[in-house]
Amino acid sequence: MNRDIAIVGVGLSRMGELWEQPLRDLFVSAALKAMDDAGVDAVDALYVGSMSSGLFTGQEHLAALLADYLGATPIPALRVEAGETSGALAIQAAILDVASGNSEVVLAGGVEKMNDVPGEAVARILMTSADAEYEGYQGFTHPALFALMARAHMERYGTTREQIAQVAVKNHAHGARNRGAAQLGFPITVEAVLGSPLVAEPLRMLDCAPVTDGAAAVIVCSMEAAKRFTNHPVIRVKGFGQATDAIALHDRKELTGLEAVAVAAHKAYAMAGITPAQVDVAEVHDATTIAEIMALEALGLVENGRGGPATEAGETAHGGRIPVNTSGGAKSFGNPLGAMGVAQAVEIVTQLRGAAGDRQVENARVGLVQTLGGCGASASVQLLEVV
Amino acid sequence: MNRDIAIVGVGLSRMGELWEQPLRDLFVSAALKAMDDAGVDAVDALYVGSMSSGLFTGQEHLAALLADYLGATPIPALRVEAGETSGALAIQAAILDVASGNSEVVLAGGVEKMNDVPGEAVARILMTSADAEYEGYQGFTHPALFALMARAHMERYGTTREQIAQVAVKNHAHGARNRGAAQLGFPITVEAVLGSPLVAEPLRMLDCAPVTDGAAAVIVCSMEAAKRFTNHPVIRVKGFGQATDAIALHDRKELTGLEAVAVAAHKAYAMAGITPAQVDVAEVHDATTIAEIMALEALGLVENGRGGPATEAGETAHGGRIPVNTSGGAKSFGNPLGAMGVAQAVEIVTQLRGAAGDRQVENARVGLVQTLGGCGASASVQLLEVV
Repeated sequence: MNRDIAIVGVGLSRMGELWEQPLRDLFVSAALKAMDDAGVDAVDALYVGSMSSGLFTGQEHLAALLADYLGATPIPALRVEAGETSGALAIQAAILDVASGNSEVVLAGGVEKMNDVPGEAVARILMTSADAEYEGYQGFTHPALFALMARAHMERYGTTREQIAQVAVKNHAHGARNRGAAQLGFPITVEAVLGSPLVAEPLRMLDCAPVTDGAAAVIVCSMEAAKRFTNHPVIRVKGFGQATDAIALHDRKELTGLEAVAVAAHKAYAMAGITPAQVDVAEVHDATTIAEIMALEALGLVENGRGGPATEAGETAHGGRIPVNTSGGAKSFGNPLGAMGVAQAVEIVTQLRGAAGDRQVENARVGLVQTLGGCGASASVQLLEVV
Repeated sequence: MNRDIAIVGVGLSRMGELWEQPLRDLFVSAALKAMDDAGVDAVDALYVGSMSSGLFTGQEHLAALLADYLGATPIPALRVEAGETSGALAIQAAILDVASGNSEVVLAGGVEKMNDVPGEAVARILMTSADAEYEGYQGFTHPALFALMARAHMERYGTTREQIAQVAVKNHAHGARNRGAAQLGFPITVEAVLGSPLVAEPLRMLDCAPVTDGAAAVIVCSMEAAKRFTNHPVIRVKGFGQATDAIALHDRKELTGLEAVAVAAHKAYAMAGITPAQVDVAEVHDATTIAEIMALEALGLVENGRGGPATEAGETAHGGRIPVNTSGGAKSFGNPLGAMGVAQAVEIVTQLRGAAGDRQVENARVGLVQTLGGCGASASVQLLEVV
C-alpha cells in the first residue's frame, strides 16, 4: 500500500427495534458522532455499507441520500455491499481511497434498518446473502445453514452443545458490561440457551443474534493527516485482508472450516507482519454461536477443533487469554447487518484507546476485526494498533 | 493519484429481454470476454456494480456469487451501488484499488437483470434510486421526475419538443450502426417519438430507454502492468470525478441543470488537464431523452440552454462536432442500470482503439463517459485517452 492509514473518529447510533427512527436519521446520528469524535466538520468522501436497504426499506442509492441528509453534498458517496461484510468493506474502500491519494479524510459507515418488515420477511431477506436460487429455493434459512456446520463441527471435533451455548453466555456477559449500547445487554445462562426454542437443530433462539436497526461510522485518513486530530490516541490500520469462497454451502471443500476467513486473515497478518498470538482483543462474527467458534479457528486464535473447549475454558472471555466480542458481539450488542463490521471496528478502536470502561481489556495494543458475509462466502479481517 | 491507470480489456454480454439467461451467466459471459480481450486468465480482485439485484432478482451478496461462478474465489469481490451510476463507480473502485498499490489487475463489471419482475415492479424499483419515502410515496415515477425537468428546461431555454425527440432519433440511428449489440438497433423518426404513448407529459414512450438484462466488464491495471497486455492499444484513465446532489428533486437548487454532473466533470477535467473542447467522443446518460440534453450542458460540451439546438443541428450525431452515444446509448443500445456505466466505458475504449467499425469516430483520441444515478443525485465522469 502506498500510504499508512489511521482511524481518528468513531460513532454509533442506538441499536435495537427503533420504530421511530428512519434509516437516514440512524445513519446521520452515527456519522455526526464520528465526526465530532474526530473533530472534523467536513470529509472528502463517504462510503456506506448496507446489505439490503432495497428489500428492507425500499430504498437503493443510499450513499447519495445519506450524503444529502448529512449535509455533505456534493462529496462523492458510494454504497458497498458484500452481505453482512458490507460495513467492514466500506472501511476497506475508504482505506483504498485514501491510500490511492484520491482522498484525505473519508467517512466510512454502515447502516441497516431491519425491523420495518415482518419477521418472516427478515428470514427471507437474510437468505439473499446465501445462494438464493439454490439454497433459498430449497427452503434453507440462514440459521439452518449454520446448523449444518455446527452439526459437522460437533461430529468432527467433538464440540459439545454446551460449548456452543457458552459463546452466547460469554457474549451476553460482555454485553451486560456494555449496557448503554447493547440491544440485549443482560446476562443469560447455558440452561437458558439450551431451553430456548429450537430454530434449526442443533441451534436455538439464544444461539442467534437479534434483528437490529442501527448504524456505525468511522473517520479514516492518512497517518500524516492523523497528526491534526489530537482528541484521541491515533489508531493505525496495521493490515487487512478480504477473500471469497463458494456462495453455496454444498460447493465448499468442507463444512467445518471458514476458508475465506483463513485466506483473509493470512493476508492481514502478512501485511501487519504479526502472528495471531500478538492479537490482544478481537471482534468476530457471531450472528450464530457456531460462527464464533469457527472464526476463532480460521483466524488462528485457537487450533482447529479447539474453538469449543477454549470458549468453555474462558480463554475468549473478558480477563481471558484473548478476549473476543467485548462489545457483546452480534448476539448481545445487536446485529445491524451492513453496519456490523463498522460497529466492530468502533469497539476495537475504543479498546485500543483504553476508553472501554467496564469492559476494557488491559494493555490492548493490537486488535482484530473479522466479519463474515452469507455463511462464509465473503470475509474481511482488519488489524488495528494504537500508535 | 499515486499511480497511472489503464484499461486493457473489455467485454459485453447480450442486451435485451434475456429470459433464458440468469444473472450469474450474463455477468460471467461479459467477464470472460473482457479477460479474453485483455489476455489474462486471472485477476486480483473483482468489483461489480448492480443497482438492485435484491429487488429485481432476490439475490444480494452478488460479488461473492459472481467471483464463485467466474471460478475466481478466493479473490476479494465487492459490489458497489449508487443507483444507475453503479457500474461507473465499480470502475472507479477498481482504479482506486490499483492506485493504492493494493491490487495490480482488477476486473470491474456491472450487471442488471430487470426482466424477471413485472413491468409495474420495474417502475417501482427504478424509484428506489430517487427518494422513495418522499417522491416515491407521492406516486412519482422516474420518467415523471425527468418530465418535470424537461418542462422546466423548455420554459427556461425554449427547448422544443422536437429537439428533445431528436436525441432518441439520433441514438437509434447510432444503434442501427451497432445492430449486433444493441437491444433496439433500428432507426426511428421524430414523428414516431411524438406519436408514441404519453408516459409523463411531455415525455413519451420513445423518450425512455427500454428495460434491459445485460452485463459489461473491463480489466483495469496500472500503466506499468499494461505493458504486458499487447492485444490492443493501451487506454489510459486520464481523469475521473464523482459527485452527489440532493436525492429529491424538490431539494435541488434548480430543475434545469445537473449540478452533480457539473461538479464531477470539473474534477475530471482538472485531473486530466483538458477542457471540454478536447473531448472527441462521449457516452452520456440518456435513459430519458431530456437527460442527454442536460448532460451535454453540465459537461460543458455545449453552453447551457444549447443542448436542444445542438442536437437538432446534428452536432452530437456521428460525423458531427462531438459524437455522443455512438453505441446507441441507453435509448437504443439498452439500459442495464448497474451495468450501464461499464457498457459506456466499453464503447469509449472501442472507439479509442479505432475498433468501432461502422460507428467509428475519426481520430478519436480522448473519450468521455458520464453516468447519472437517480434523477441526478449521483454522477460520475471519466476521461479516457489512447496512449
